[in-house]
Amino acid sequence: MAGKPNILILGAGYAGMVTAAKIFKKIDQNQANVTLISKHDYHYQTTWLHEPAAGTMHPDRTRMNIKDVIDTTKIKFIQDEVVEIKPAENKVVLKNTGSAEYDYIVTGLGAVPETFGVEGVFEHAYSKWTLNGARQIKDHIEYMFSKYNNDPEPKEADLSFAVAGAGFTGMEFIGELSERIPELSKKYDIPMNKIKMYVVEAAPTALPGFDPELVEYAMNLLENRGVEFKINTPISAVTAEGLVLKNGEEVKASTVVWATGVRGNPVIEKSGFENMRGRVKVDKDLRAPGYENVFIIGDCSLIINEETERPYPPTAQIAMQQAVTVANNLNALINNKALEEFKPEIKGTVASLGGKEAIGVIGKRKVFGTSANFMKKMIDNRYLWILGGPGLVLKKGKNPF
Amino acid sequence: MAGKPNILILGAGYAGMVTAAKIFKKIDQNQANVTLISKHDYHYQTTWLHEPAAGTMHPDRTRMNIKDVIDTTKIKFIQDEVVEIKPAENKVVLKNTGSAEYDYIVTGLGAVPETFGVEGVFEHAYSKWTLNGARQIKDHIEYMFSKYNNDPEPKEADLSFAVAGAGFTGMEFIGELSERIPELSKKYDIPMNKIKMYVVEAAPTALPGFDPELVEYAMNLLENRGVEFKINTPISAVTAEGLVLKNGEEVKASTVVWATGVRGNPVIEKSGFENMRGRVKVDKDLRAPGYENVFIIGDCSLIINEETERPYPPTAQIAMQQAVTVANNLNALINNKALEEFKPEIKGTVASLGGKEAIGVIGKRKVFGTSANFMKKMIDNRYLWILGGPGLVLKKGKNPF
Repeated sequence: MAGKPNILILGAGYAGMVTAAKIFKKIDQNQANVTLISKHDYHYQTTWLHEPAAGTMHPDRTRMNIKDVIDTTKIKFIQDEVVEIKPAENKVVLKNTGSAEYDYIVTGLGAVPETFGVEGVFEHAYSKWTLNGARQIKDHIEYMFSKYNNDPEPKEADLSFAVAGAGFTGMEFIGELSERIPELSKKYDIPMNKIKMYVVEAAPTALPGFDPELVEYAMNLLENRGVEFKINTPISAVTAEGLVLKNGEEVKASTVVWATGVRGNPVIEKSGFENMRGRVKVDKDLRAPGYENVFIIGDCSLIINEETERPYPPTAQIAMQQAVTVANNLNALINNKALEEFKPEIKGTVASLGGKEAIGVIGKRKVFGTSANFMKKMIDNRYLWILGGPGLVLKKGKNPF
Repeated sequence: MAGKPNILILGAGYAGMVTAAKIFKKIDQNQANVTLISKHDYHYQTTWLHEPAAGTMHPDRTRMNIKDVIDTTKIKFIQDEVVEIKPAENKVVLKNTGSAEYDYIVTGLGAVPETFGVEGVFEHAYSKWTLNGARQIKDHIEYMFSKYNNDPEPKEADLSFAVAGAGFTGMEFIGELSERIPELSKKYDIPMNKIKMYVVEAAPTALPGFDPELVEYAMNLLENRGVEFKINTPISAVTAEGLVLKNGEEVKASTVVWATGVRGNPVIEKSGFENMRGRVKVDKDLRAPGYENVFIIGDCSLIINEETERPYPPTAQIAMQQAVTVANNLNALINNKALEEFKPEIKGTVASLGGKEAIGVIGKRKVFGTSANFMKKMIDNRYLWILGGPGLVLKKGKNPF
């Protein structure tokens, strides 16, 4: 290796951004060139997207310019889309600007929706859990309200909103939407009883894996806001009319939001890494098996929870912790020290349910209502602190006052 | 050194507690015995004490049992008062339980009030900025109100409250008190115009070192709540009647709160370390000059700000950062690695002014009112997260909802 090694960071989600923010706290700045590559020149908080998607928060509040957070005098930023990683050639193929070579690479590429083979998802449902996707969902919802009032023959289905999947994302989204529906009802002069909200889930419970008491709390609360749950109800197709269920029933809805889960990034599959649905079962030091200089973290890494023997779901919490380990391990590689093992430390999980409502687990304690809502906002603000210090909290944080 | 080295941590303030909380994240648990020694079996947040002192927060909300936060199966806890450190003998003399020997010591002993030679402070003013001290101030204030109504000859001075010092502590305290006075006025049937509040400051400005615009904001706000400032006004004595000023004037007040500043702990002076008013100008690795195994952090360490060439004021922010460096440096000493230099990273400073008001600087940005209040609560909650994770935030945090 002649001169300083080149470190590439792919993706500006939680994994990539925290790696970029922490790397020169772990590595001496004279020891490496670092480049961050991302499709957009902004970062957004995926875990906040249920709010702009439902229209309860301006989308710009969930994003920030990368250059406002990452010191681009120290880290080079390339705005481009990654097409393929060629690990045998230590190089990355980019869509518009050719290619980039590396000595070490950290891939923090994000997940994509999982359809589980259901037809019509990409044609008829909103499935992109991105900033652009969230804006489209919000505008579509509002358009349905204004359209209903102007149609010569108003369609009931235009006032019907269906969410496929009662996991974390689906529940947080319906929480926001159900909180906003009374406002939309008033704004567009449409009586509440004409508006329908559905959540359809194939598993035997909403929020699989969550404590049953919390699940019940969430479902009761959402049902009181007018949400109808169809649990244990697999979907067979999405059509222009709505959802077709495996039991033969149809859910007529001009708005279907697809939130049944995610898979890893197609770039991982294309690049030849051994993977399961786009996720690589990484070594304990977070490297891809067989590659000494390829780290995979965030949504495309697969880590087994030794207690449950099942993979951890891809969360911001784990991505951020992985980023710190990766920064340490890059320093170790550059300075010929021993690499450390990644050990996830699950501090808790909180799902917001709109307004001042939320549920969750903090340590071993269950939380509901305003305590849970407080913890959710604290978690969101703490992320901003980790990324950009108190200045970023001040600028972008959730100030309850 | 036979067997595992013994590490003693003295004091359970910000410095000692964060050292204890982080030490086994930096040092392998099999490599050292760690003991924490503190006078009380609880920790309290000194930076919150203006609230219980004024009676706007229950004192128990600012404290926690040490055993609830520090894993005492891993760290031994001794409840005792430190009388003297004998660095030549590697031992600490304790008040009740004899002595404790060490291979390495981290002293996080707290500050004591500075009187600047003014007479009568300890006899006639409330100067103890501790949990017990705060409780006494609150109870005394309330007692003055109830006494006034029952005295055959009610004393005006019983309704007069004087704070000596318009620094951080004095301003935060008068902020809380002025916020609470209307409530006390109502509760005790005493008209507002009978109640007097004074802040007396020897320096040419309140909050010396703070931005003038912020100081003006704070003074205007407090004056609107009825506080009278006497700036540029040194005090010559505290008496049973109140304050005697150098200009000959008297401020009659049955309650005087002394908040002119602090000095280091007398134990440091007694133990023979070279010091300035109880503070040791520590080496860059935070060790006491001339001692390879003595770290001094927190209120008793003196660190020069190279930009201003003046010492940093002793703050929780710096104490917590020092604790992380100390944990790293203890690991380095035990494993024969190079020690790191401590570099304070001042992220901002926010002073609360009672209610939803505060002022401060975050990065280079000035903040006022509700933004500042939000950042203050965020800083307070973040401390709890660092110490005990989200569970402690949930239990003890400032939940605005």
